[in-house]
Formats: sequence, C-alpha cells, structure tokens
Amino acid sequence: MVRVGIVGATGYAGAELVRILSGHPKAKITVITSRQYAGTRFDRVFPSMAGHVDLVCEELSLEQLYKKADLFFLSLPHKIPMEIAPVLINKGKKVIDLSADFRFKSHKAYKDCYQEHTAKDLLKKAVYGLCEIYSDKIKNSDLIGNPGCYPTSTLLPLIPLLKAGLIDGKTIITDSKSGVSGAGRSLALSSHFCEANESFKAYKVAVHRHNPEINEILSIETGKNIKITFVPHLVPMTRGMLTTSYAQLKKNVSDKDINECLKSFYSGRPFIRLLYDQNRLPDTMHVRGTNYCDIGFVIDKQTNRIILISAIDNLVKGASGQAVQNMNIMLGFDETTGLMAVPYPL
Amino acid sequence: MVRVGIVGATGYAGAELVRILSGHPKAKITVITSRQYAGTRFDRVFPSMAGHVDLVCEELSLEQLYKKADLFFLSLPHKIPMEIAPVLINKGKKVIDLSADFRFKSHKAYKDCYQEHTAKDLLKKAVYGLCEIYSDKIKNSDLIGNPGCYPTSTLLPLIPLLKAGLIDGKTIITDSKSGVSGAGRSLALSSHFCEANESFKAYKVAVHRHNPEINEILSIETGKNIKITFVPHLVPMTRGMLTTSYAQLKKNVSDKDINECLKSFYSGRPFIRLLYDQNRLPDTMHVRGTNYCDIGFVIDKQTNRIILISAIDNLVKGASGQAVQNMNIMLGFDETTGLMAVPYPL
Amino acid sequence: MVRVGIVGATGYAGAELVRILSGHPKAKITVITSRQYAGTRFDRVFPSMAGHVDLVCEELSLEQLYKKADLFFLSLPHKIPMEIAPVLINKGKKVIDLSADFRFKSHKAYKDCYQEHTAKDLLKKAVYGLCEIYSDKIKNSDLIGNPGCYPTSTLLPLIPLLKAGLIDGKTIITDSKSGVSGAGRSLALSSHFCEANESFKAYKVAVHRHNPEINEILSIETGKNIKITFVPHLVPMTRGMLTTSYAQLKKNVSDKDINECLKSFYSGRPFIRLLYDQNRLPDTMHVRGTNYCDIGFVIDKQTNRIILISAIDNLVKGASGQAVQNMNIMLGFDETTGLMAVPYPL
Amino acid sequence: MVRVGIVGATGYAGAELVRILSGHPKAKITVITSRQYAGTRFDRVFPSMAGHVDLVCEELSLEQLYKKADLFFLSLPHKIPMEIAPVLINKGKKVIDLSADFRFKSHKAYKDCYQEHTAKDLLKKAVYGLCEIYSDKIKNSDLIGNPGCYPTSTLLPLIPLLKAGLIDGKTIITDSKSGVSGAGRSLALSSHFCEANESFKAYKVAVHRHNPEINEILSIETGKNIKITFVPHLVPMTRGMLTTSYAQLKKNVSDKDINECLKSFYSGRPFIRLLYDQNRLPDTMHVRGTNYCDIGFVIDKQTNRIILISAIDNLVKGASGQAVQNMNIMLGFDETTGLMAVPYPL
Repeated sequence: MVRVGIVGATGYAGAELVRILSGHPKAKITVITSRQYAGTRFDRVFPSMAGHVDLVCEELSLEQLYKKADLFFLSLPHKIPMEIAPVLINKGKKVIDLSADFRFKSHKAYKDCYQEHTAKDLLKKAVYGLCEIYSDKIKNSDLIGNPGCYPTSTLLPLIPLLKAGLIDGKTIITDSKSGVSGAGRSLALSSHFCEANESFKAYKVAVHRHNPEINEILSIETGKNIKITFVPHLVPMTRGMLTTSYAQLKKNVSDKDINECLKSFYSGRPFIRLLYDQNRLPDTMHVRGTNYCDIGFVIDKQTNRIILISAIDNLVKGASGQAVQNMNIMLGFDETTGLMAVPYPL
Repeated sequence: MVRVGIVGATGYAGAELVRILSGHPKAKITVITSRQYAGTRFDRVFPSMAGHVDLVCEELSLEQLYKKADLFFLSLPHKIPMEIAPVLINKGKKVIDLSADFRFKSHKAYKDCYQEHTAKDLLKKAVYGLCEIYSDKIKNSDLIGNPGCYPTSTLLPLIPLLKAGLIDGKTIITDSKSGVSGAGRSLALSSHFCEANESFKAYKVAVHRHNPEINEILSIETGKNIKITFVPHLVPMTRGMLTTSYAQLKKNVSDKDINECLKSFYSGRPFIRLLYDQNRLPDTMHVRGTNYCDIGFVIDKQTNRIILISAIDNLVKGASGQAVQNMNIMLGFDETTGLMAVPYPL
Repeated sequence: MVRVGIVGATGYAGAELVRILSGHPKAKITVITSRQYAGTRFDRVFPSMAGHVDLVCEELSLEQLYKKADLFFLSLPHKIPMEIAPVLINKGKKVIDLSADFRFKSHKAYKDCYQEHTAKDLLKKAVYGLCEIYSDKIKNSDLIGNPGCYPTSTLLPLIPLLKAGLIDGKTIITDSKSGVSGAGRSLALSSHFCEANESFKAYKVAVHRHNPEINEILSIETGKNIKITFVPHLVPMTRGMLTTSYAQLKKNVSDKDINECLKSFYSGRPFIRLLYDQNRLPDTMHVRGTNYCDIGFVIDKQTNRIILISAIDNLVKGASGQAVQNMNIMLGFDETTGLMAVPYPL
Repeated sequence: MVRVGIVGATGYAGAELVRILSGHPKAKITVITSRQYAGTRFDRVFPSMAGHVDLVCEELSLEQLYKKADLFFLSLPHKIPMEIAPVLINKGKKVIDLSADFRFKSHKAYKDCYQEHTAKDLLKKAVYGLCEIYSDKIKNSDLIGNPGCYPTSTLLPLIPLLKAGLIDGKTIITDSKSGVSGAGRSLALSSHFCEANESFKAYKVAVHRHNPEINEILSIETGKNIKITFVPHLVPMTRGMLTTSYAQLKKNVSDKDINECLKSFYSGRPFIRLLYDQNRLPDTMHVRGTNYCDIGFVIDKQTNRIILISAIDNLVKGASGQAVQNMNIMLGFDETTGLMAVPYPL
C-alpha cells in the first residue's frame, strides 16, 4: 500500500484524484491539502463523496508535508509546483505534477508561454507522462510532468502515424473542443452558467499554451521541427474533450495502412480503443468518467486528407486518470489498477 | 456466482443493470434480451462499455430463456412482465420486475391505472422491493416488484415520520422533479433535445400512476387511508430526481424530533444519507450514478410545516441500483455488493 | 419620446432593460451606468447587441445623473436604491426600482429580511409594481417597487382566487423553480457551469426574502394575515421560472369556478395567458423572452386541492419586462408598447 | 402587403418562418400547411405563439394551395419541393425553397448526394439565395434555392478571400459545429435529450451533403475546381452554429489585408458583423435568434495559416431568416425588414 498525498485537492482535477485514489486497491491517501478549504472535511466541499472519503483538507509547510506520504500528486497552478517538487524529490519522494511545470524539455519553450523556469535541472530528469508513449521512461522516473488534456487527446492519434511516415507533419491542423470543467473550479465569467450554456466559441486561437507542448513532443518524436495549428473551443457540457485533427496523407496511404499502424502501435494498451473496425466514431459521452482515449478516423478521398478524431474525459485521461496511470507504471502496478470501473451507458 | 438474466437490456434501466451487474463480484450476466437489438452486441448499442461487456442481445422464447439464468431482472413495459414472471417463477427462478406489474397489493388499484391484472395470485406473493422498508420480506421472496423512481424518493423520507406520528398524513403534498432519462430511451417529442432543453414543466399533474403506488404503501404502513397530492415535473438534465414533500407537523414536534426519528429509523442503512446534522440539503448532483437517497429537511416556523427533500439518481436508486440491492438481499449478500463505487465529484 | 436612464445596466436585468428599451418606440435611453464597466461600450459587454446599441457605460454622481433622463430604472443591489431614489424623486424624476427597497409597505418587514430602511417616507409613496393588480395606483405613481420574480409568478395566480374566497389562505404552499440567471451575473460557485449543470436543488428553503414579500401582498389583498410556505429551487437552464402552488379548495368549488374567476379577473390583460380552456399547462419554454405569465391549474380530486402552475421569464415578466410595463402604465402608453415581439418557437 | 404561404410550417425552420413573418410589416401569412398537424391551430403546436398567431395548419392540394398566396416558402424534406415548385412557378408564383432541391447548378452533383432531379429546367432558373453574394440575381428571380446552414456559415467568410486571391483554395479545411435544432423536429435517437446532452461528436465526416454544395459555389465563384474538407459536429445546445475554417495564406498576406478585404467586400451589408477591429471572436450566443453572421479571424504566424471563424443561428441566417431576407430582396423591400429585433443579451 503506497501512501499518497494530493496537494491541491479541491480543484476539479484534485477532486478526481481523490475519487480515483479512494477506490484504488494499492494506494492510500494519507494527506490532502487545500489553502482555501484548510480545516474542512473534503466531503463538505464535494458532498457526493460523503461515506467514501473522511479526509480533512490541510494547509501544510513543506517540512510537514513531505513526511506524510511516499508519492505526491501536485494539482496546483503552474509556477508553484516548480518550487515544491525539488524539495519533495530531495527528500526521496516521487512526484506527479499535473501542471505544465515539468512538461517541457526546453526551458526556453516553457519560458515563452509561462515564465522563467526556476528548477531547470529537474526539467531534465522529469518524464512527460503520456503513458502510452513513454511508459518505459515513466517506470524509472521519480518526477512526472503529467500531460495537458489537449496534448493528450491530440498526441495519441498523431504520434503513431507521424512516426510511421503516413502523414505529412507540415500539414497538421487540430481543432479541439472541451467541456467547461477544463477551465477549472475557479470563478470566471466564461464559466458562469449563463455565459457558457447555449454558447459555443473558440478561444485562445493559435495562442493556447498547449500548442507549444504539442509541438515539442511531436518534434522530439519525429526528429523534425513540427508546428501544428491548434484551435481550442468551449462546449456547453461539464466533462469531455473531442479533438479533430487534419493532415495530408502521404502518397498511396490507404485506410488499411492507417488502421494497421494504429492497431499495431497500440496493441496491448488497455486505454486506447480503436473504432475503425467497428465503423464508428468517438463521442465524448462514451468516455465520460473513464480513462479511455477513443480514436477513429475517416479519409477524405476528395483531398487525400485524413481526419483523426479522438475523445477523452478531460478530467480523467486528460488529467487525474492519466496521473494515476503514471503512478501505477512508476510503482510497477498493472497500469489499469483502480481505473477500470464499468462506464455509465449515459 | 449467481447467473443473472436481463430481459429488456437496451432501455436505460436495462443498460444500467448491465453496467452494475458487470461490475458485481457475485453475479454473472448469462443472458440479455432485446427485441429491437437482437443479434447486436450490447457494446454497439452502448459503446461506452466496449471492453467491459461482450454480451450479445438475444430474442428468446420463454422456454429458451428460463434455462439461461437463476435470477431474472425484467426491464420491460408494464403488462409484459405479468405474462413472463409466472412462467419463470414456476420454473423455480427468482424474478425482480422493474415495471409496475408487481408493485400493487390491490389488483383493483393496479387496474385503475394500468389494466386488468392477469396474474393476481402472484400479486399476493410479490414483495414491494423498497429495500430500506421491506428487507425482511425481500429476503424470503422470489418475486420483487421493484418500486418506481418517484415512489422511492417520496416514500423513504415520509414513512418513518408517518409511522412515528410526527406528521399529519392528511396534509402531504409532494412536488417532484425528474431528469429526462426517467422517460426512457423511446422516441417522443417530449424527450427531443430541443423540446426538453431550456424548458421546465409539470406533467401528469395529480394523475401520475406513481401516485396510487405511493398512496397504497403509505396506507399499508400507517393503517390509514392516505392520499397525497403528487405533481411530477421534468428537469432539463439527464439523470436525477429531487422530491420536495410538505406536511403539517403534529403539535410540539421539533427539528430534533424529526432528526432523531430519521436517524434511528435508518440507523445502519448504508444507502440513506441524512444531511440535517451537516446543515445542508440534497442536490441531485451529489447522488448522480449512485444508489444513495440523500434526505434533508427544514421546518417552516411560520406555518409549522415540514419540508422534506430527498434526492436520488432515478436510474440507480430509482430503478436498477435498487433492483440489484434487492437481489443482494434476496441472495444473502451484503446489500451494498457491487453498488459502492466512489461517486464522481461532478 | 421619454428620456430613460438605466442605473446598473450590465447585470442581467439591466441588460434586458437595455434590450427592451432599445426597441421601444416611445422611449430613448439617454444614459446607462455601470461601475464595473465605466467607459466601456455596452455592446462590448453584451456583443449580441452590436449594431443595435451604441451606448457607453458611465459612472456618474447623482448631480450629473439626474439631468440626463426623465425616468430612471434602478437595477442595483438592494440598499443602494434607497439612497439614490430620494434624490431623483426630489428632482422630479420618476423611478422604477428593480431591487427590494421599495417593495414593502412595512419597513419592519423590510428590516427583518434586509436592513434598516433609510427612506421610510418614500416607502409610503412607493407603489408595488405588480401591473395586473395595481395598475390604477401605478398610473399615478412616481416611484415603483418592481416586484421580485418569485412574487410575480406566485401572486398572479393566487390573488384572484384568494380574493374570490375560492381557496383557503392558510393552506398555501408554493414550490418554485428558477433558471440560473435569477442569481445574476455576479460570480458565485453556485452559478459556475459545472456546479449548476446536471444539478437540481432547493435553496433558502422557507427563508427566502421573497417569502415575506409575498406574504405582505397577500395579506393586504385579503385583509387577513397570510403566511405561505415558500421553497425555491434552481433549474439547470438560463431563463425561466415555473411556480407550482398548492391550496385547499373551499367547499363546492369546481374547476369551472376557478376558470371563470381567473378569466374574469384577467379579462383584457394582455400579458396573462390562461391555459385551462386549451387543456394544457405552462412550460417555461413558452414564455422565454416574453412578458407573459402563463397560468394553468389542475384540481386533485382525491384531496380537493388545487394545483396552480404559472410560468414566466424571470428576467422579463419577473424583472425588466414588468419594469417597462410599469413605465408604460405610468406614462399613459399602451401597456404592451415595446413588449410584444413575436416569441420564439424554441 | 404580400400574401405569403408556408408549406411545411411545423418543422423548426417552418416555425421560425411563422415567427419572423408574423412580425413582418410588409407580409401577411395567408396559408400554412402541415400534413402532420392538418386542422390544428399553429399555436397549439408551438404554444409560445399564442396571442400572436391564429393560423390553422392545412393540408391542401396544389390546386387549392397556389391561389392562397403570392409567394411561397417551401420548408419540406428534399425531393418534394422539386415536385411542387414547378406548379407554383407556372402559376406565376414566387418560390423560396429551403431544401436542397434548387441549390445546385449541376443536376449531376445533386444526383450524387440526393437522387435524380426531376425539374432540371428549373434548376437553371433557380438562384442560390446566399444574399450577401447573389443579391443582384435574387432581385430578379422567382425561384430561390435557400442555402444550407453549413454552407451559409462556411461560404460567407471564404468567398471574399478566395476571390481576392488571399488564400489558397486547395488548402481549405472546415470544421463546423451545430446545435441540435439543425437536425430538425423529427424524432431520432441522436436528437434524444439523453443522447445529445453532455455529448460532443462529429458525424457524416467528409460525406455531408453540404460539402458538395459548398464546393460548387466556391468553384463557380473562383472559376477553379475547389474541394474543401468538411466535418460537421453536434453541440449540446438548441440553436447556433460555429464554423472554423483553415486555409494557407498566400505569400505576404497580412491581417490587415484580410481585414480590409472583408470590410470592403461586406461594406453596407447589415447582417455581416466583422469582429477583427474589436479584437474579439464570434460566439453562437451573440447571434442567437438573429440573422447576423459574425465573422472573426486569427492568423497562426507559426504556419502562415488563417483561422476564419463565423457564427450564425442555424435556424435564422442558416434557414428562415435568410429565406425572409431573400423575399425582401426579391420584392424590393429593404433587406432587413422584419429581421432587426434587438437581440437578447443571453
């Protein structure tokens, strides 16, 4: 039984960590922190969990915190994790950071979208926790930069095809759509019910911070300088993310080639469901509450473009579920441990 | 491992049965039927479950059906179960019927809202499966009339107070609100997204078939002829039911009396969460996907009326979850078996 | 052409005033104020109106403000209007206040729910702007306390029946349901999309400030001390309010009596639509964006109770539409002026 | 006062026609037809309109129908209009058809997506009713093929830039998102509340019938053979359509060039709102219930691609609003007549 701590437990990703880890057979939550709710029972903040979780939110100094668990999930705004993680790592703890602080290899890229990085040495040690791609590195890592939700849903369908040379990396356009929970629990006019309901819009068009994160990983994976066009949109629903990516097929590439490539690449990976053989396409409803990434595709014969569609739950595979999957891999558990509840039909 | 069959598996209640029973450690689904989808894999009808359920929908004669399982859930429109259940019972099977066919003691009451009952003898043997009230009878029963969603959410808060004589049975008014899934998966204009979205309305006002069901149980429990006013409403959300009941308090009854009565009555019942001590009220979001019934109350000092509020998930405690709870009790399992997944925070 | 000012134009009620008055043939908006958005064009705050409204939000001293218009709508949090209104009235202006500050006759009742009233003299002069009930007084008034949304939807069906002695005033229970816009545009966790969506709950049960407002009017109208039980609920939709009221019928009162009473009372009132003769019930969707109050009813024969159902748009008949209707009456315009756009079918 | 008839008045587009035309100062609806609701008052089908519309749905032979109006809107499934329109045209009537039957110049293209065209001669006479592009032809036409919702929102931003040679026609990808009302009022599982709510998905990927409609117009306008990749998605909201189109900019084209091109092209066109100068982007909420097409864009400097975003109300500018705009142009009215109600702030 590993003792786990959740730092920042009362945001939506933090609360999902509490949910998943409370049902995890090999982990025990030994500490949860929240500045805003210090001293309050967690199930008063999220009353659905009454009867399942009897933890109380704490506010702790790092000196107090590190002793309380063996592995820490940091579910905090960026900038704070790069101050906390070095201390925990020094004390021999394992850290899975859900912010952007340890996602980038290049501290320059990080600085361009966020600010100066203050733990550059750790950046080198950190592993990008996209489980289906980097499980070998994750196994041996103490520090995980857990991927963003948009990068997760964008990278999983693209990486196999790019590595196999089936699509042209210079032609990638990604049009992604997220439920409102992706914006977090903080109050903002754009998350006000009356402003988000019955509304659909794009935001941070071509300037979203997940764009360089995607670019860096695709460039590392292909050895080329890949830059994609990336446009996020906001959907009037709570959970779910659908990503539609477009790319030019290389010559003479057929649907079968694409399908074989994806099937072979993701063979044995329990959280990737490939839909082509079932002649259907992803729907966020089908992954709601799960750690799955459903992937489908269509080839536009008129233009020889592929349309790749992937669906995830932004709070699970896009955040807390993948974080727990990372923990499972780091600790040598089966990667599905605690993540396989039967999904809801609706 | 009990072999269970689900007759009518592709409606919403049927699909919830598949979900819950697929994760049940002591039950194995050995047959599912669906006329509409005979021959189709269940996970093509509800693709969220791909990877979890590999059952194929069948259409079977009763002669074929009964051999395939030891216990059957009937999730069918009323009238059909009263034709099927007698055959299954005769073959020594246990039956939990989710329709209204075996809910009434009085076949006259049944006839008034539905039609002539064709299995009157079985009506006498059938037990009303409101688990927290009738667990002793359920234990020894082979045939359960699983309660309606409105009756479940209405009866659970009222019965203890009526039996204790704390409220006046002649003054009960119940104003209930249900998500759209309560109307089922069949196509109807009232379930069309554009007709239900951004709409709130009452329907079947004072003529809903669950009204006599509630009246009968309250009358049996109190030994008086109780008739409540019952008004259902439709909420633009998928799952969830909130029921607000009003009644005149008997003289000198205080909040503490009410609270003590409920706490004592439901002591040790894992699916009843009483909120008064936490100074909060039920919200359908807090029971979404769970088998809980959350109960809170407020006393209107101006008028000496109590306002009782209960929340359930109409598809779980209001249908399939309670059906599985009934199975657990019938078979001597712990009543929470397979029903205690950690709830979602949102 | 009357010059009108809107003080507090960027809340939802304020914005609805801008919408309605921009299309009003006999009014011209000459000033709008907003502390938060001073200096900003209104159509940058509410971009739907680009091309229709070219006003800029201002922040003004009372000395500057009063000169700019002849009639002022105050759409501000309570407490502020009772400081502003006396000044405007002194300057000979007409004032329609959308807060609670001028709704009560009894300053003690006001103090019990809000705070000490600082303009008690004006309280006596103010008219409660429930147009269908008080149009005679409204005609001759300079100061209107525009009714709350819950009181509007509750009072309109009840008053005629109480005055005619058809129902028992001691037995009234009102269960009301509001869309989220009723909570305003201010940021609050309860208005966060992810907290309100797929949720239904009661709030401020039996302690809502609109309860004494309703009680006072019903008591004045009947000459009796009426206290109703009042429970508001929050519906996951933007606009709309449905109110379900229950009362015991007096002896020998029939549906026809009720129907005749309502028809006679509301004869010639353009914004009341009575649905009994059409054998249907109100739905918030049918009044969305309109100034209508749709009223229907059913009699529960089992218990001799009446169930009265009314639907309004909480931002129109429940706030800004009724405010403009009040203006129309005060200024001798037809009361429908500017309020009769053809409603949307969905 | 022109006498207008609406054939197929009880679908959503038909009902919007009734709404708009009921408030039109120069048109009078003299006949509405509906097979399903023949003999029923329109305001019983759409009760929001009670008090505004007293028409009764009729079922009429063509011989009866043609006498009843001067101009007919056909709001019917494709295939039926090409049987009706020739008769009406022969009788000297004007016809605006909202189906696809008269949108294509090429009967072969029509046949490829629909079926054999049975009124090929009329195809030549028909004008594609994209008002901002073809107003000159519309003026002199008796038969309008009213554009599809997706084509309207896609073509309006693309045509000026393609004609000006600012973007590369071979690189266009259009990712479009529609509210559920786009699928009409007919019952279908995909429009069931519980299947559409909290779901986001693509459908008819690269095979939607609006794709060839868009291709044909772009090819005609540019004199080149343009084929775009087109992917529609379904959004859990009632009304609204957001279209995101991507294209490679030609060399040395700047934001200013794009902005100037759009401003100049749409100068004086009241229903196009260009947002670049306000530094904001379209949101379906801002066009809800209106005939506007809001257009914004961003240039992705990394890749020299333009991202064009347009928002319309699929039922207004995407269907019935544009149909009335066509009528206005055909009859020499100001094109905004009856279409300029002040939009709702939310």
